[in-house]
Amino acid sequence: MKSSNYHQVKEYVLDKLQALNIILTKEEKNKIEIADFGLNNLEVSGLQLITYINTDKVCSKDLVLLPNQTCPEHKHPKRAFDEGKEETFRCRSGIVYLYVEGPESSNRVVGPPKGDEDYYTVFHEVILQPGEQYTILPNTLHWFKAGKDGAVISEFSTTSTDEEDIFTDPRIQRV
Amino acid sequence: MKSSNYHQVKEYVLDKLQALNIILTKEEKNKIEIADFGLNNLEVSGLQLITYINTDKVCSKDLVLLPNQTCPEHKHPKRAFDEGKEETFRCRSGIVYLYVEGPESSNRVVGPPKGDEDYYTVFHEVILQPGEQYTILPNTLHWFKAGKDGAVISEFSTTSTDEEDIFTDPRIQRV
Repeated sequence: MKSSNYHQVKEYVLDKLQALNIILTKEEKNKIEIADFGLNNLEVSGLQLITYINTDKVCSKDLVLLPNQTCPEHKHPKRAFDEGKEETFRCRSGIVYLYVEGPESSNRVVGPPKGDEDYYTVFHEVILQPGEQYTILPNTLHWFKAGKDGAVISEFSTTSTDEEDIFTDPRIQRV
Repeated sequence: MKSSNYHQVKEYVLDKLQALNIILTKEEKNKIEIADFGLNNLEVSGLQLITYINTDKVCSKDLVLLPNQTCPEHKHPKRAFDEGKEETFRCRSGIVYLYVEGPESSNRVVGPPKGDEDYYTVFHEVILQPGEQYTILPNTLHWFKAGKDGAVISEFSTTSTDEEDIFTDPRIQRV
């Protein structure tokens, strides 16, 4: 990613959090992750996040999505110490279109990014407005996309081991 | 608690959360807990909270304290399924004076509620400003008090089993 883009996106994240009166320490501001998943198309496919705590038991993050940005399909598989990460998404602002395993929803609101359709396989739609939440069970495929105003999601979960995530798109390397 | 007090305190909680743009569903608004721990002195000793999620692995709550209100000393002991609840407090607004096991701090900012000194035994001070957090390990005594403006704390933890909490004050029955 170009350095100018990085700074612009980081400012967007800080603005979105500030609008929710979410206060970060200086160290946390320097720890904001911007993930383009190696697809080099951040505005379309990517995710921004800040991790507050990640112990060997629980993890808490805030996820920030750019307008219409998609976090690509993936799952959190069985690990040495458990059946996989369990995570609850709580929408804090914006609208989140979340797709999980289950019967395909008719008249879905959004679709996968153009050209990437082959790498999206689950289409059971869950729409989260601010204050609404959904728990994604371990080892379950899911992907999600923000509405036109972007979105902020609080995630409460078991331990995160991002490097173990399995993405449907074989081009993706999560670093 | 008098019903009029209950409604007044509930309004305070909703106002405090709204000031942080924390949006609750209608069901959640009806689930706000107001705990006076059977001491019948809520403004001095008590806690208000909303539980967002409590699975068999993780739990997320927001805790709201009245101005200068103290949550009495307690610990989360070893349970059938783990070593006790691990919890991280993240201060969202106000100031939190947290006391945990460890060397007694000199020049502590606050003390136990008057008349209840016998039921407070740990005095290692941790002061949390908005954006600051602290992780309380399982089976560790702790108590906390809000500053003059009250406080909101986001709690990320392992499973909550409030009924198993052990309070130092034998008068307390956590229902």
